[in-house]
Amino acid sequence: MKTAIIRKEHFNSAHRLNNPNWSEARNKEVFGKCNNPNFHGHNYDLEVKVVGEVNPDTGYVMDVKILKDLIKKNVLDKYDHKNLNLDVDDFKLVNPTAENIARVVYDNILNDLPEGLELTIRIYETERNFAEYPA
Amino acid sequence: MKTAIIRKEHFNSAHRLNNPNWSEARNKEVFGKCNNPNFHGHNYDLEVKVVGEVNPDTGYVMDVKILKDLIKKNVLDKYDHKNLNLDVDDFKLVNPTAENIARVVYDNILNDLPEGLELTIRIYETERNFAEYPA
Amino acid sequence: MKTAIIRKEHFNSAHRLNNPNWSEARNKEVFGKCNNPNFHGHNYDLEVKVVGEVNPDTGYVMDVKILKDLIKKNVLDKYDHKNLNLDVDDFKLVNPTAENIARVVYDNILNDLPEGLELTIRIYETERNFAEYPA
Amino acid sequence: MKTAIIRKEHFNSAHRLNNPNWSEARNKEVFGKCNNPNFHGHNYDLEVKVVGEVNPDTGYVMDVKILKDLIKKNVLDKYDHKNLNLDVDDFKLVNPTAENIARVVYDNILNDLPEGLELTIRIYETERNFAEYPA
Amino acid sequence: MKTAIIRKEHFNSAHRLNNPNWSEARNKEVFGKCNNPNFHGHNYDLEVKVVGEVNPDTGYVMDVKILKDLIKKNVLDKYDHKNLNLDVDDFKLVNPTAENIARVVYDNILNDLPEGLELTIRIYETERNFAEYPA
Amino acid sequence: MKTAIIRKEHFNSAHRLNNPNWSEARNKEVFGKCNNPNFHGHNYDLEVKVVGEVNPDTGYVMDVKILKDLIKKNVLDKYDHKNLNLDVDDFKLVNPTAENIARVVYDNILNDLPEGLELTIRIYETERNFAEYPA
Repeated sequence: MKTAIIRKEHFNSAHRLNNPNWSEARNKEVFGKCNNPNFHGHNYDLEVKVVGEVNPDTGYVMDVKILKDLIKKNVLDKYDHKNLNLDVDDFKLVNPTAENIARVVYDNILNDLPEGLELTIRIYETERNFAEYPA
Repeated sequence: MKTAIIRKEHFNSAHRLNNPNWSEARNKEVFGKCNNPNFHGHNYDLEVKVVGEVNPDTGYVMDVKILKDLIKKNVLDKYDHKNLNLDVDDFKLVNPTAENIARVVYDNILNDLPEGLELTIRIYETERNFAEYPA
Repeated sequence: MKTAIIRKEHFNSAHRLNNPNWSEARNKEVFGKCNNPNFHGHNYDLEVKVVGEVNPDTGYVMDVKILKDLIKKNVLDKYDHKNLNLDVDDFKLVNPTAENIARVVYDNILNDLPEGLELTIRIYETERNFAEYPA
Repeated sequence: MKTAIIRKEHFNSAHRLNNPNWSEARNKEVFGKCNNPNFHGHNYDLEVKVVGEVNPDTGYVMDVKILKDLIKKNVLDKYDHKNLNLDVDDFKLVNPTAENIARVVYDNILNDLPEGLELTIRIYETERNFAEYPA
Repeated sequence: MKTAIIRKEHFNSAHRLNNPNWSEARNKEVFGKCNNPNFHGHNYDLEVKVVGEVNPDTGYVMDVKILKDLIKKNVLDKYDHKNLNLDVDDFKLVNPTAENIARVVYDNILNDLPEGLELTIRIYETERNFAEYPA
Repeated sequence: MKTAIIRKEHFNSAHRLNNPNWSEARNKEVFGKCNNPNFHGHNYDLEVKVVGEVNPDTGYVMDVKILKDLIKKNVLDKYDHKNLNLDVDDFKLVNPTAENIARVVYDNILNDLPEGLELTIRIYETERNFAEYPA
């Protein structure tokens, strides 16, 4: 049976929800106050779960320091204290909903993860709204 | 791969654990202080997890505002500031343990959920005791 | 300068807010859903703060084990898994608002506290509503 | 002795820290990543503490429903899902640091508070950075 | 479909990470400050999840009081206010990483669990680092 | 009126409670399981509160980055992943109770704090036991 480790990090960003193919009225109707053209923001909490075999020499699935560095490079350095819509290439064409952020973070970190490990991303937009990918 | 969204809500209710087919002594033995005939109560935290495909136009598995309304209609309006045993039809014949509340909430919300979405309910009776359905 | 220690405990109780000198209509108007005659309930969190000099031999303001016992005797044994209105003498004539619970707990614990120590009580009815006595 | 009640609310906003009387370089030096011209954001948690005498008829310092409405009118309706710098008059000339938000919220709510009550505001910018006014 | 109940407990222990087959330099390189020969410590939070059928007479997957007793016997009595490396037989030959603690706790509790129930262990070393077994 | 800012940090340490002037039996009687000669440990949470005037140019009582550096130098670099009794000079002659840690941290940070600012330290040994200095 495999074991999981989970590392929790956070970042603070501005964002708005908007579909550029829709009219202003349609965007306002669907996204409500999240569509505010001047943006709003969140303290995002991020949980990165890595599943694999425990290395018998270290007792680790993966060294958490290495995982921290992967998260820093792939998420915090790019998203923290940024405007997700304006400052981050990942969301130039992708609407920064919690669902989409979870999938984008998954793709970014998976790229750098050692082979043989499985990954799940959970992103908290607020304490009451969060998303997980893959489910 | 699918994506999950989770919405967290809460409600405050009175309840007691009791099996009407048992003697008072048997109920007291099994349910202990949870059997107090004058009730006790909890701040219940409820997590509703919905799994599905992300709509490419919205970036949503499901609009959280719609999910909030489903939870309000099916849970909060019926349970909040109520006595689960005396005021709520769902528990007239069902012992309001965390396990049973999770299943009843699942059945209620599933009824109203758009097709093609999967549902999981987690209910926190306290920070230290919680239940999940289906597991 | 003095030092404070704080001990956090919790209890789960049913209650309702009601003024027996008022009409049903007036009670409903003032206390709203908290007036439900069948009760509702809470996971109360209680913080007991004791201020005094640090004993140079122990490094303690007061042994937390002794403080725990005082809280158990004066609060948990009387309120936990009880109906505050029906089961607890302290609230036979006192409306169990957070403000009144804080003052009653203060009076009860102060009675048993060694001389020379100051006491403050904070009671969380929910994460979002709490009271402190004395302020 | 007086009693306090505390009500916790939250709002999600974008902001940046900037002094318009300073050069861009000076602003960047002092405010670092908080000066990002495209903004970042936070889930602000707000604690409003009101101190007064307990009304013997209600057991309330003040009806929390009334306090909630005061906070909604003076804070949530103006700040939630807004850009504090661009959308909110309160911060047209005031740098939206946690310290300044605390003072501005204090001034706004105090205006509407019944006489004879004292007010303290605590604002959490993150779980790790918060401010209180008056101290 | 099955139901899960989860019980959360905690314990406070000292530990260090070390592989006795490695040189001091190698241990320091791999485990960093967690290798401190004089130990450091944690407030461990433990979540024990038990999955099974709900008993129709009780509404319980398993009586939480019984589960609490199993956790007390198999974990708290052995680990709380102890040095995991020096005081606990379970870790005489096993490096007390979060991953290994999760597996050892799983093996210990499973031994005592009634047949037909499935078990998952989650152990929080800190709020930001935790492990789960089986994943 | 003055304003407070609070910065929260954490560190993980081993410790034991012991008075070297007492017999082993007396120490065991007074400090119980906290006296374990092989140590136990905690995830300490530390809140540093600084009270002063808000600088009108920055909107800051004090730059939190500077406060973070003061805490790092005076607390984290000395206590994190250490054994308070064996590795830290501050506790060579001082019993590391929460009360004493709060006072020692106060003395250390005050030394480096700009003049005119007031300081309060809150230290959480667990979520349920914490101390504050000065009270």
